[in-house]
Amino acid sequence: MLITGTFIDEISHDIPHQNWGPEEWEQDFQHMVAAGIDTVILIRSGYRRFITYPSTYLINQHGCFKPPVDLVELFLTLADKYGLSFYFGLYDSGHYWDTNDMTTEIEANKFVIDEVWKQYGHHPSFKGWYLSMEISRKTKGAVTAFRTLGQLCKDVSNGLPTFISPWIDGKKAVMAANAAITKEDAVSLQAHEKEWDEIFDGIQGVVDAVAFQDGHIDYTELEDFFTINKKLADKYGMQCWTNAETFDRDMPIKFLPIKFEKLRLKLEAARKAGYDKAITFEFSHFMSPQSAYIQARHLYNRYQEYKSTL
Amino acid sequence: MLITGTFIDEISHDIPHQNWGPEEWEQDFQHMVAAGIDTVILIRSGYRRFITYPSTYLINQHGCFKPPVDLVELFLTLADKYGLSFYFGLYDSGHYWDTNDMTTEIEANKFVIDEVWKQYGHHPSFKGWYLSMEISRKTKGAVTAFRTLGQLCKDVSNGLPTFISPWIDGKKAVMAANAAITKEDAVSLQAHEKEWDEIFDGIQGVVDAVAFQDGHIDYTELEDFFTINKKLADKYGMQCWTNAETFDRDMPIKFLPIKFEKLRLKLEAARKAGYDKAITFEFSHFMSPQSAYIQARHLYNRYQEYKSTL
Amino acid sequence: MLITGTFIDEISHDIPHQNWGPEEWEQDFQHMVAAGIDTVILIRSGYRRFITYPSTYLINQHGCFKPPVDLVELFLTLADKYGLSFYFGLYDSGHYWDTNDMTTEIEANKFVIDEVWKQYGHHPSFKGWYLSMEISRKTKGAVTAFRTLGQLCKDVSNGLPTFISPWIDGKKAVMAANAAITKEDAVSLQAHEKEWDEIFDGIQGVVDAVAFQDGHIDYTELEDFFTINKKLADKYGMQCWTNAETFDRDMPIKFLPIKFEKLRLKLEAARKAGYDKAITFEFSHFMSPQSAYIQARHLYNRYQEYKSTL
Repeated sequence: MLITGTFIDEISHDIPHQNWGPEEWEQDFQHMVAAGIDTVILIRSGYRRFITYPSTYLINQHGCFKPPVDLVELFLTLADKYGLSFYFGLYDSGHYWDTNDMTTEIEANKFVIDEVWKQYGHHPSFKGWYLSMEISRKTKGAVTAFRTLGQLCKDVSNGLPTFISPWIDGKKAVMAANAAITKEDAVSLQAHEKEWDEIFDGIQGVVDAVAFQDGHIDYTELEDFFTINKKLADKYGMQCWTNAETFDRDMPIKFLPIKFEKLRLKLEAARKAGYDKAITFEFSHFMSPQSAYIQARHLYNRYQEYKSTL
Repeated sequence: MLITGTFIDEISHDIPHQNWGPEEWEQDFQHMVAAGIDTVILIRSGYRRFITYPSTYLINQHGCFKPPVDLVELFLTLADKYGLSFYFGLYDSGHYWDTNDMTTEIEANKFVIDEVWKQYGHHPSFKGWYLSMEISRKTKGAVTAFRTLGQLCKDVSNGLPTFISPWIDGKKAVMAANAAITKEDAVSLQAHEKEWDEIFDGIQGVVDAVAFQDGHIDYTELEDFFTINKKLADKYGMQCWTNAETFDRDMPIKFLPIKFEKLRLKLEAARKAGYDKAITFEFSHFMSPQSAYIQARHLYNRYQEYKSTL
Repeated sequence: MLITGTFIDEISHDIPHQNWGPEEWEQDFQHMVAAGIDTVILIRSGYRRFITYPSTYLINQHGCFKPPVDLVELFLTLADKYGLSFYFGLYDSGHYWDTNDMTTEIEANKFVIDEVWKQYGHHPSFKGWYLSMEISRKTKGAVTAFRTLGQLCKDVSNGLPTFISPWIDGKKAVMAANAAITKEDAVSLQAHEKEWDEIFDGIQGVVDAVAFQDGHIDYTELEDFFTINKKLADKYGMQCWTNAETFDRDMPIKFLPIKFEKLRLKLEAARKAGYDKAITFEFSHFMSPQSAYIQARHLYNRYQEYKSTL
């Protein structure tokens, strides 16, 4: 099970920015190709006031700041050039993080989807949509949001595929700005299955793939959770991807690149569970030969060695 | 509004040391000049037991450790050589952080000011004083401390200019060693104006410039707070500088270099408010081409590109 | 007092992994030799499920993961080649961190000691054992664990030396995953002496050296604590080493390399107290010319300059 997709973490919640310009981004796309990546996913097109493209709608209606560079145009152009598939991540107003209410996300993205498709839909690499709301089992309104927005994405784009990347409410599901690295009240396997069965039932047909984040559970729990995830995805006709996190949740520095052995364990668990694809959060900080985190450069080498043995 | 001054973060409260020797410091002064910097400010000449120059007074009376290198001599020599203005930051005993009482700062710095001027006042680059006590509105005795020490600095040095760099008690005003990145009880615009009006009234005449730290408020609040700061500075005949922080307060890693877009927003807000000068905390960690944080090297490039477009 | 030994931090509790392969490790052994190091200590042979060598016992009985590389073989081979002494650190099941109970450590390590000696005891560089349980004064069962395991190590290996590296329960003794950097209830000198006198009495004869971690107390307390440590070690016929931590406990980023001046203070305090040897935690992250933390590269240079002046 090799990594064939990566998020692009613009705009970031919690990972410090590398301050790359177009030149560094082009180099990184070349590194991605060398690593076997065929898919890039913009993690979100905006977060609160910061946005990735000069959206008239978001600037006028949400008071967003005009960005110095049109990153959507940049990434699509590079994806065109290097033959990658680009997935567009929806706008995150921050409102549902504050209120656990999805209404603002739905309203804003109705306009964003339309605007983006008009402006960038002509790019041959524009291959899908990422419904960027990161949810877990207790997020109110998530099903409605995914149904509404997934349908809109498909309607506007002749049915391009959509996917989501939720987190498992495991023992490592703590906020990044919390000093702790684990919590007590992790979800049980039974509750996880029951609750996601309901969610998948609700989003069936408008979400084509689900890529659970793989970092919130213990390494010994991978097999059990992955088996359930695959079973549920099969039941509802969705592709089952893994979001193989390449940063380390076990360390007090939040966050630096993961130890290769841990990444390998997670990828092999996904393979055993019969997953369809592995993507990662994310290549450019945590696995790129030009990352500001030098550990990432070594992770790249270890991963490439591993790849060559398969 | 371009950055023309930087703090030098020796001795540091909360930013890990880069372990540079004289050679790296000389290189960094060259980088500073290339970035358009004409002023360097020693953030403090000492913090608790660690000091920047072999002060007989501080070693004997405060039990400070004799430093391996005389950094004041080093920085002044480099400032002489490269034509920069050097501001000397007063000693921080740590006592007022522990007790919110300024008495120790006043007593210790009476001696430090005298000692330093005798020892280093002959350097042509010695151009001013930085009253290093970082305060916000609730610091008791701050006005008395600034009056007393500002006057002493001027008396001993034929009236060289002085400045302060307080923080706005905004939503991001949390201690570095606190895991959280925001707090609830941020100051209102009205309270900020009222309280600083009183403080400025008290320090008028002995403080020539005020450089509020720009990182404790939201990006949407910059304009309102900056407008008040400029109005108050004008009212009391002080220069209004901005301390444009080049590290990112929005991330759980405390602290790495800021995203360029955020820095640009802050600098442009300062320009719109008619500020007189921009300094930064600080070049060597967060913006230098030789910083240990590789993100800083890219920030330098983004900043230089921006500078070339103005 | 120069550093002549270093831990190798595989497997790590709280320092993010550098993802080095055999090539980087060989280079680092060369850097160690250049820095004057003659002893390497594997910090632990395993931690919970992650282990450094393919232990049949730990994989079958403790569900440990088979490691991608046999690090014990790698490190011993390199130590043979470069003439270093290798100390083997025992397995840490994690159980006593969770329960403050040493029973699991004792049971597991009975097998590990035997297995390891059979498999690797032929290496000429295998020169001793590190009883890896990091304890302080309140750890129940520590004396029994050290007695039992120290004796076993000696029995199996013809009396090779053993050592421990406990922490002083000082003001900086806070968990890495706690945002704070100090605590209120630090141990007094009197309590420290009384309690360690009892512990040393209990482990006399099976532990040959004690290397207290030097980072949990204030720099002003070094002399007092070091004097007591040396007195106690002398009383019980043990060597007194210092574990000179090369990371900085005073910063909110947990953890980056220490400021050289602080390291020098600690080494000089150890020299004054008549300590026998200085080791460090640890060279490869915090002091190596090829560390992912670029501050470490400068620390290496500062340290080498210092070494050349002695």
